[in-house]
Amino acid sequence: MSLEPVLIAGEWRESEKTGTFQAANPATGELLAPLYPISSWADCEAALESAHAAFLEMRAMPGEKIATFLEAFAVKIEEQADALVELAHLETALPKTPRLAGAELPRTTGQLRQAAAAARSGNWKHPVIDTANNIRACYGAIGPVIVFGPNNFPFAFGSASGGDFAAAIAAGNPVIAKANSSHPGTTKLFAEAAQLAAVETGMPAGTVQLIYRTSHSIGEQLVTDDRIGATGYTGSRSAGLTLKRAADDAGKPIYLELSSVNPVIFLPHALEEKGDALAEEFAGSCLMGTGQFCTNPGMVVLIAGESATRFITDVTQRFEGAAVGTLLSESVKKSLHESHRILKEAGAEVLCGTGPGSGAGCCVANTLFHVSGDAFLRDPETMQTEAFGNSSLIVTASSLEQAAAILGHLEGNLTGAIYSAISGKDDAAYDLLAPILRQKVGRLLNDKMPTGVAVSPAMNHGGPYPATGHPGFTAVGIPAAMTRFAMLQSYDNVRTHRLPDILRDDYTGPAQRLVDGTWT
Amino acid sequence: MSLEPVLIAGEWRESEKTGTFQAANPATGELLAPLYPISSWADCEAALESAHAAFLEMRAMPGEKIATFLEAFAVKIEEQADALVELAHLETALPKTPRLAGAELPRTTGQLRQAAAAARSGNWKHPVIDTANNIRACYGAIGPVIVFGPNNFPFAFGSASGGDFAAAIAAGNPVIAKANSSHPGTTKLFAEAAQLAAVETGMPAGTVQLIYRTSHSIGEQLVTDDRIGATGYTGSRSAGLTLKRAADDAGKPIYLELSSVNPVIFLPHALEEKGDALAEEFAGSCLMGTGQFCTNPGMVVLIAGESATRFITDVTQRFEGAAVGTLLSESVKKSLHESHRILKEAGAEVLCGTGPGSGAGCCVANTLFHVSGDAFLRDPETMQTEAFGNSSLIVTASSLEQAAAILGHLEGNLTGAIYSAISGKDDAAYDLLAPILRQKVGRLLNDKMPTGVAVSPAMNHGGPYPATGHPGFTAVGIPAAMTRFAMLQSYDNVRTHRLPDILRDDYTGPAQRLVDGTWT
Repeated sequence: MSLEPVLIAGEWRESEKTGTFQAANPATGELLAPLYPISSWADCEAALESAHAAFLEMRAMPGEKIATFLEAFAVKIEEQADALVELAHLETALPKTPRLAGAELPRTTGQLRQAAAAARSGNWKHPVIDTANNIRACYGAIGPVIVFGPNNFPFAFGSASGGDFAAAIAAGNPVIAKANSSHPGTTKLFAEAAQLAAVETGMPAGTVQLIYRTSHSIGEQLVTDDRIGATGYTGSRSAGLTLKRAADDAGKPIYLELSSVNPVIFLPHALEEKGDALAEEFAGSCLMGTGQFCTNPGMVVLIAGESATRFITDVTQRFEGAAVGTLLSESVKKSLHESHRILKEAGAEVLCGTGPGSGAGCCVANTLFHVSGDAFLRDPETMQTEAFGNSSLIVTASSLEQAAAILGHLEGNLTGAIYSAISGKDDAAYDLLAPILRQKVGRLLNDKMPTGVAVSPAMNHGGPYPATGHPGFTAVGIPAAMTRFAMLQSYDNVRTHRLPDILRDDYTGPAQRLVDGTWT
Repeated sequence: MSLEPVLIAGEWRESEKTGTFQAANPATGELLAPLYPISSWADCEAALESAHAAFLEMRAMPGEKIATFLEAFAVKIEEQADALVELAHLETALPKTPRLAGAELPRTTGQLRQAAAAARSGNWKHPVIDTANNIRACYGAIGPVIVFGPNNFPFAFGSASGGDFAAAIAAGNPVIAKANSSHPGTTKLFAEAAQLAAVETGMPAGTVQLIYRTSHSIGEQLVTDDRIGATGYTGSRSAGLTLKRAADDAGKPIYLELSSVNPVIFLPHALEEKGDALAEEFAGSCLMGTGQFCTNPGMVVLIAGESATRFITDVTQRFEGAAVGTLLSESVKKSLHESHRILKEAGAEVLCGTGPGSGAGCCVANTLFHVSGDAFLRDPETMQTEAFGNSSLIVTASSLEQAAAILGHLEGNLTGAIYSAISGKDDAAYDLLAPILRQKVGRLLNDKMPTGVAVSPAMNHGGPYPATGHPGFTAVGIPAAMTRFAMLQSYDNVRTHRLPDILRDDYTGPAQRLVDGTWT
């Protein structure tokens, strides 16, 4: 069996490994042929040295050059589209179309091109000039970034291709990608394309590097290393919190996207107006991609009444009737069963599902739980256990006031949605609940499912802990996402010719600058 | 002896205390009469409840109303100026003029008025609108903020009056002020003025609250409480790191300003051009305020040579000849001696000082240490021990390359300064050193001492760890400092009449908004 090489310092080289692993096809359970190395510290040390050297060049590089690299990479991805879609489908069981080829791939190249445009314009640097005091400030690159990508978006959040990657590079930082162990081959294809683009566009050797897996303790050592600027992590809460603690103790910024149940509140008159349509919308959103979205609606709040009862019956039928998708891996299946066990034990009633799924390979039946508001409030923490996959929990509050209490007990979430009647009959209820929900979520939606995450400058794919590690940052949206991988740098009385171009009086570039209080 | 009350829920009430303490006059060593309570959790619990209630009102309050409060507070401070200056002088031994009355007091009211202007304009919210996707985002208040103020700026960084206070309130958050134990009376005067202003301008009861001291474990409990949005801390590294770990584990943002040696590099030709003037400038800056500035130049780097030798002799004479100021407290004196002991033990040569000072009360002789670059590089961590007070360490590098190595071993600092010759003869040296220093500091200066910290939108009073907890934020500078006490809030498809004013299409207010990529 072939042992795959790691990408360090611009070369595909044999790993100094401590072991090997294989990915599996979740649709069949079969192990896939290639062996991937588990890297020792020696690999990491070499990658850190090369990343540090690359950083010294990149932080002072014109945005134009970085943009050219990102765009060349996007083209190479398009050239490799078929191979990427094939392999990602094999490793993740995500449908080739429309999901991988039609949605995620163009999203990925689109993000890279938006990041290129941001690098080119320099707007992300947020230049601020105080001419009276001759103090000038802008954001600058923070240092090499380690990206831990999640299992659920092998392209758009991939560690060598996704949002964190694009944001980190566009801000002038090299990336050390740690592949997600469930799709190492896909990540390798991206790293190959990135490396070709880096060579073509004259980027330093350590711009993009790839390792596949390390021990937990080496992972912690990586995110705390002196040469590192910051870390981007998307994945499970437990692994993320271990890395967070290590990075926090070392004073190294770490941006995490951990878990979120994404509460959706359907107010009574909205259900009366179009309960059927809403049941369809909810079921579709919740089961799409076998429910494996960070913004999957994993919790629904209803106010007890006829319309709520009808909605529950309707949604249950839809869940029972819908095709069961394949989960991303055996470990996703295992943790979904474990979450179900926890919810059941806490007293949640199974409306449908929790048993074996009728789909291909790794799957669990479409699952709906139900609890009363009283039961939820008896143990709100357990009831918010994320069940990552095709699963949701419906909470029926006995009254509007109880719904308010339930929202008051929510943990931080990426999103929260409220559906209210067009007639305005739910407006008083909205006005009570929305302010409570607003403070708990990064993105508040009206009359819309949270599953779509537009790559928009106004997007907030973030939220209060434990959805992420800090409520001031977003992982999606250019240029806002780049600020995570930047440090604030002020220049006080620095001689004009030594200033970054963007802060000079004679700057003529495209960036918008805040000069003496006015954007120009 | 009188026991001072705490300010909770708008009332000056008796503390549920676990003990008491007194402040001392550092110029005489005498204990000052009032007894201040050490608060139990009962005080904190009551303050948290009231702060939470105040927050529900404040987060939705028009900026105009908050601005009116901040401005009324500034006026009350001016009315109380004499009493504030008298008491602060008694508690801190800082000179009444020009320091307290002429510099710090107007800075404090100026900051409050800048914060008021920011609250009024709303620019700090950074509104971003994507009309095509109908997604809109802005910063919103984060929740009640606990402010731990430092000992060295009883007004401008005071917990009930200073920069963190102003930024937190202006962003729509109530403040629970934890007085610095060395000037509790001064903090109480501010809280009284703030409370009067709050009543006059119709602010909620819990807008400003004051406790004086708690146990360490209660402090940790405070910064992790669910009802808290964030914490601002300025003070010693050890106490700060304990709070940081607690807050990090709870996922609560904490902004710390911990310690900084603020390296200053004098390049050889600059010393040749005007070594005398630079020696005077450095000694003045280092001994000003008895060296008790966060941005005090506590480390100097020289390149070995005649000009360096002359500079050292000159500065030593100036340190020996200069009047010795009074330190802020017995504990500052004690920790200054301790830092001196550590530096001596590590092999630093004493050029002058370390013994008893000739000033009034609490003091230590003006102190200069010297080490070779070799010695520094043998133990860079210990050699960067902050000696908070009238003390500095001169490092003589054997070569420019060694100077570069020394900068490469620096921890994160608030500031770094490089003096270079006007003639341009130091330019090659600058070009080697500046990029290394740039990455280690929040503010890079040319030909200027770091001690002045202008309240400017372009200021960065921040820097990489351990100067602060995160290199992306500043503690000084409105509106940038407010972002620390804000969360990013996105609105997706939210009905127009439910949006915050600043995100509506028909907004006519003063804030500059980024609409579809352009500032308007």
